[in-house]
Amino acid sequence: MCSSHATTSQTIQASVLHGAKDLRLEARELEAPAAGEVQVAVRATGLCGSDLHYYGHYRNGDILVREPLSLGHESSGEVVAVGEGVTDLAVGDRVALEVGQPCGTCARCTEGRYNICPDMRFRSSAKSFPHAQGTLQDRINHPAAWCHKLPESMPLGLSALLEPLSVAIQASRRANLGDKKTQKVLVLGAGAVGLLVAGMCKVAGVPQVVIADVDANRVHFATAHKFADAAYVVPMGPRPATTDEALATAKQTADAIAAVENVGQVDVVFECTGVPSCVQTAIYATRPGGKVMLIGMGTPVQTLPISAAALREVDLCGVFRYANTYAEGIDILSRADGPDFASLITHEFKGLAKVEDAFAMASRKEDDEGKLVIKVLVTN
Amino acid sequence: MCSSHATTSQTIQASVLHGAKDLRLEARELEAPAAGEVQVAVRATGLCGSDLHYYGHYRNGDILVREPLSLGHESSGEVVAVGEGVTDLAVGDRVALEVGQPCGTCARCTEGRYNICPDMRFRSSAKSFPHAQGTLQDRINHPAAWCHKLPESMPLGLSALLEPLSVAIQASRRANLGDKKTQKVLVLGAGAVGLLVAGMCKVAGVPQVVIADVDANRVHFATAHKFADAAYVVPMGPRPATTDEALATAKQTADAIAAVENVGQVDVVFECTGVPSCVQTAIYATRPGGKVMLIGMGTPVQTLPISAAALREVDLCGVFRYANTYAEGIDILSRADGPDFASLITHEFKGLAKVEDAFAMASRKEDDEGKLVIKVLVTN
Amino acid sequence: MCSSHATTSQTIQASVLHGAKDLRLEARELEAPAAGEVQVAVRATGLCGSDLHYYGHYRNGDILVREPLSLGHESSGEVVAVGEGVTDLAVGDRVALEVGQPCGTCARCTEGRYNICPDMRFRSSAKSFPHAQGTLQDRINHPAAWCHKLPESMPLGLSALLEPLSVAIQASRRANLGDKKTQKVLVLGAGAVGLLVAGMCKVAGVPQVVIADVDANRVHFATAHKFADAAYVVPMGPRPATTDEALATAKQTADAIAAVENVGQVDVVFECTGVPSCVQTAIYATRPGGKVMLIGMGTPVQTLPISAAALREVDLCGVFRYANTYAEGIDILSRADGPDFASLITHEFKGLAKVEDAFAMASRKEDDEGKLVIKVLVTN
Amino acid sequence: MCSSHATTSQTIQASVLHGAKDLRLEARELEAPAAGEVQVAVRATGLCGSDLHYYGHYRNGDILVREPLSLGHESSGEVVAVGEGVTDLAVGDRVALEVGQPCGTCARCTEGRYNICPDMRFRSSAKSFPHAQGTLQDRINHPAAWCHKLPESMPLGLSALLEPLSVAIQASRRANLGDKKTQKVLVLGAGAVGLLVAGMCKVAGVPQVVIADVDANRVHFATAHKFADAAYVVPMGPRPATTDEALATAKQTADAIAAVENVGQVDVVFECTGVPSCVQTAIYATRPGGKVMLIGMGTPVQTLPISAAALREVDLCGVFRYANTYAEGIDILSRADGPDFASLITHEFKGLAKVEDAFAMASRKEDDEGKLVIKVLVTN
Repeated sequence: MCSSHATTSQTIQASVLHGAKDLRLEARELEAPAAGEVQVAVRATGLCGSDLHYYGHYRNGDILVREPLSLGHESSGEVVAVGEGVTDLAVGDRVALEVGQPCGTCARCTEGRYNICPDMRFRSSAKSFPHAQGTLQDRINHPAAWCHKLPESMPLGLSALLEPLSVAIQASRRANLGDKKTQKVLVLGAGAVGLLVAGMCKVAGVPQVVIADVDANRVHFATAHKFADAAYVVPMGPRPATTDEALATAKQTADAIAAVENVGQVDVVFECTGVPSCVQTAIYATRPGGKVMLIGMGTPVQTLPISAAALREVDLCGVFRYANTYAEGIDILSRADGPDFASLITHEFKGLAKVEDAFAMASRKEDDEGKLVIKVLVTN
Repeated sequence: MCSSHATTSQTIQASVLHGAKDLRLEARELEAPAAGEVQVAVRATGLCGSDLHYYGHYRNGDILVREPLSLGHESSGEVVAVGEGVTDLAVGDRVALEVGQPCGTCARCTEGRYNICPDMRFRSSAKSFPHAQGTLQDRINHPAAWCHKLPESMPLGLSALLEPLSVAIQASRRANLGDKKTQKVLVLGAGAVGLLVAGMCKVAGVPQVVIADVDANRVHFATAHKFADAAYVVPMGPRPATTDEALATAKQTADAIAAVENVGQVDVVFECTGVPSCVQTAIYATRPGGKVMLIGMGTPVQTLPISAAALREVDLCGVFRYANTYAEGIDILSRADGPDFASLITHEFKGLAKVEDAFAMASRKEDDEGKLVIKVLVTN
Repeated sequence: MCSSHATTSQTIQASVLHGAKDLRLEARELEAPAAGEVQVAVRATGLCGSDLHYYGHYRNGDILVREPLSLGHESSGEVVAVGEGVTDLAVGDRVALEVGQPCGTCARCTEGRYNICPDMRFRSSAKSFPHAQGTLQDRINHPAAWCHKLPESMPLGLSALLEPLSVAIQASRRANLGDKKTQKVLVLGAGAVGLLVAGMCKVAGVPQVVIADVDANRVHFATAHKFADAAYVVPMGPRPATTDEALATAKQTADAIAAVENVGQVDVVFECTGVPSCVQTAIYATRPGGKVMLIGMGTPVQTLPISAAALREVDLCGVFRYANTYAEGIDILSRADGPDFASLITHEFKGLAKVEDAFAMASRKEDDEGKLVIKVLVTN
Repeated sequence: MCSSHATTSQTIQASVLHGAKDLRLEARELEAPAAGEVQVAVRATGLCGSDLHYYGHYRNGDILVREPLSLGHESSGEVVAVGEGVTDLAVGDRVALEVGQPCGTCARCTEGRYNICPDMRFRSSAKSFPHAQGTLQDRINHPAAWCHKLPESMPLGLSALLEPLSVAIQASRRANLGDKKTQKVLVLGAGAVGLLVAGMCKVAGVPQVVIADVDANRVHFATAHKFADAAYVVPMGPRPATTDEALATAKQTADAIAAVENVGQVDVVFECTGVPSCVQTAIYATRPGGKVMLIGMGTPVQTLPISAAALREVDLCGVFRYANTYAEGIDILSRADGPDFASLITHEFKGLAKVEDAFAMASRKEDDEGKLVIKVLVTN
């Protein structure tokens, strides 16, 4: 039908960050989708830690924002127009957006690791310039090839989890969960990513998933919603005065976790906090020949017991975003049994005008009613 | 306690095959367990297709029986004495027996693929000589290192499934089920092995497991007991007159299976029948870059559309027994959710005197009440 | 410089196949290179077995030619114009052409296996329609991303070997040559592909490379030019009357090869003939846990001792074209030591008018002087 | 011949460490070889860094010597007697000793990673108790399964390199050198291990091997003897005052190395020093998706730019000893071309009475004539 080919530009609303905590609702002109693109009315966007950093500091680590930037990249929506040559998608289709666009021809891309393409343009990140604008907008044009059609039964809100779940899938693949007899894993950190990773381990059939966090509510949430089999609340002690003390504490924590249900040293630790004491604990908690997956983005320079890893062939493996994960993610979120992924969406704000409220909530541990804040959605 | 060190030999009863269908219950002298061994009172042994072949023909394919042979290798029991130096097991422990003893020092053993050790001695198989006697005996002495302690909650009968389940685990590992985004698999053959393989795929988190068999009852059993998500009953047509006809039929079958719930070509086919038409179908049913796992032992020489595999980098991968699978198997059988593995044990015969009855039942498709015969146990 | 942006079309000469053995030299209009493309003056094209099939039969196996088709895909040339947005290449650069263009967005492409992309458009192949025209033309426009810049020292003729060498690289990777302690390989067939594969094994550090062929001259060529360490001339016996006889002969051949310098069963066999008796031999010649790499495109349906493979976990792995191989290939052809790859180019014909002569030579085993015909080039 | 079965004990001489620098030549009683063992007259033992640590401090890192200990584990010799049941070896055979004896039945052993068996007994190491005595003795009894028969052409002195070469082989395997298109590697440290690792990369076919060290003589040795293609001498600057300065320096070093022959970031860095500044440099020098292999045993706790690794999926992978490497090592040392491994044996001391002199030399960088000290042998 010809109406599906939008041929003129239109004015849309976008939530745009102009400086630290300077978020404005603005009008933007949106062209008709180009050849190979679809136009998507964004329906749900989850807020991520990196969004929070940009919002709070107009930077993310070393990356400075250099022009006004729409945030948001955990997103799904509805196709409202299709560009020339698009045959796989039609107006009305509901899609999850894979928001990173790799170059497609570098060595990393052609070997299937497009997540580490040096020329990646990733929506809501200020790394590439001009910045690739995020999804906290009414509508965006996006390549059809990076839109993943959703089954009818999947709520658009839930599908916004596909992006962070993709990180968990990437981690489970890099850990070779299914390759060998991985029996026991430890997840450090029970925030959104840690919970998704733990859940992914259960989905992958790992029998014993232990999760640890300093927050008792979070680890109990994890076991109550079937993300993990056992939980350990890390005691908050005084800050260690020396590296030796810090390592001794990390070793004790690893031993204490090993004692939980006699789990012993684990095959893989998924470190989701980025905190040095946790990475240290991760090394001590892993069995010879196991892996520590570094997922949490945290302290960039860390002091680590590196011999305790190397002499036992315990590998430290980074996880950065994801490649080829959406199909698996859609399947996982479609299942009835296993971890209750929908429970992770704890708060929802309707309309781009509520983005600031959403960020305020996302920066909290619990809401006013004492309910855990895990994943905050902005819907539209 | 000293009583745990049996120091004298004793007379036990053994079911011994002396020729085709010539099974005798005999007395044997059993020494005390040697250093590193335990003595196990065998409590349950499942009958396997190879046992049936030996029983019926006093041979298995090319392998001739050269001396009286006790059959049985899917087995578990109770430790009744321990040899010198055994510290991990004690009298009273319940164990599953891993009945193959590899040489431990050849290239295959030291690289972790002991299942294909050329000098493997495998109980109830006539391949090595003197033959390693099977478990259809009152008691046997077995190296402690190859006895796997069972959790208290696991019934000894159920644990007899660990051996065939190990084949399924081996197949899932060789297929790299967990390495990449395996979304769809096809299992050809819904006998005990096919059902275990399908169940293993579900345990490993494969979203879409399709099973196919000529027997409608079996495929319905598979879906009813959560071994598979979808089923296809292969129609029994006239025998194809030519290779071209056979291949055309195989292609049609593959297409028909691809149409089941729109599953399309699958990532992996687990071929559990050994029948040429099924291997042909398996090749056509697999997507480019996928794998056909050859599990069923059947026609040793087959006519196959080899270009249809090679030109799409579809690999044909053998699966022979298993290595390092018991820990994972014990965990899988310990779970409450997922496939109903216990349902596979359809018939049980008590006492070595009933071994012939057990073989008679194991050779049938259904019992007198019309109940499917899947796995037949001999308990003691 | 503006002259590098060709902005108008021009008339070029192309060698075009119109029917079996109906090759015509024709004028074609060539547009200026589009954005992202370069225009390449083709300087050298090697002839491949598939070219020969198309030339002789206007088809290749099941694939029929449906419109006039230029052949040739082993090719290199010189950049004579660059399209908009091309920054990595400039006029005057010498490049090897990677002539297959995958879709870039399907599951195979994004996982790094673009060689098995179902929508691949491959020059000189009639599989896609309209056909992607081959390189036996004066000039072609080609995406810059699929042109590989050559070092100054590399002759353009030699670089035409990069395409078939890529198949050898792909085979060595799929065989995991470097992953484990591959000590011994067997290459069946000492044509261009077999020699390249053998040479690749030497480059990859395999200590013992045995090559076998029915043609004594070829296997001696292989060892004389350092493609292999040992050679075996397969005796030409009477055609076996039955499958059993064929298999017995294959087994004997495998045993005879195993006896060459006591090499024994090998870790990997690279089967480069596509002939059933060779694939049978390959299976018998491989050690437990080894691999048979199916490279030769030959008899599409074969009768194979499949149990002899499966029961020893000997995998049959297809090799189809290549992905991400050119950088490695360029390096290999740049080396001074090791196999003498340049020796493979045995015959050269200058000018598109000589294409028919080139095909005539490529179809022979030896030339009039008795010199082996291995790779025939058309230069321009 | 019966004389090959030594049946009585005898008195032998052993070099035994009783305290820091307290090395004594003592008589020991040696039993006849037990079943499965051979008795080997030790002919050559190379000195290793760990031997030097034990010799100088009567400890190695955290591991204290608890009883008099013979050092030496890089060793080969001649079979002088064989125990019962030994069929693969005979008196007069020349063998390399693989001196670590894993338990053979733990999860690591049965999966083929016996090098990280927690119960490993490794000659000359004080980790297990009673200590497994080293090879600086006249004769030892050793399991035949862990003796590797040498080709006649291989000098026993050269074969003493098989042990440290095995570490290099293990590193190349864990780095998957052959799996993908590894084109460029960097080796940090040009001591014996670094040189062996670099040579191994050449053997494995890596086109561009860059080696770096603070010692110009060593890196020139590396290129002169074909262990590497290019060399970089790391300038010795003032010690950085802060972590930031240290990281900036490491980044500069990485950039300077990348500029050597335009090599750019490398696929794999083999870190053979254990020095934090080198591990830091290694991380910066590696391309996205590459690996840093941690081989050098050095500072056990290090401050590292861990995000610079994790965010690019650069993995830090330990290498500890080796598994299944001797066959490959024997082949490599048997070759005529490639790196000149024999050149690594720079000094030789004859007789156990000269062990102290050998240690003195091994602790030096150069001898009195200014010749590099790389590997010091004790022959007998």
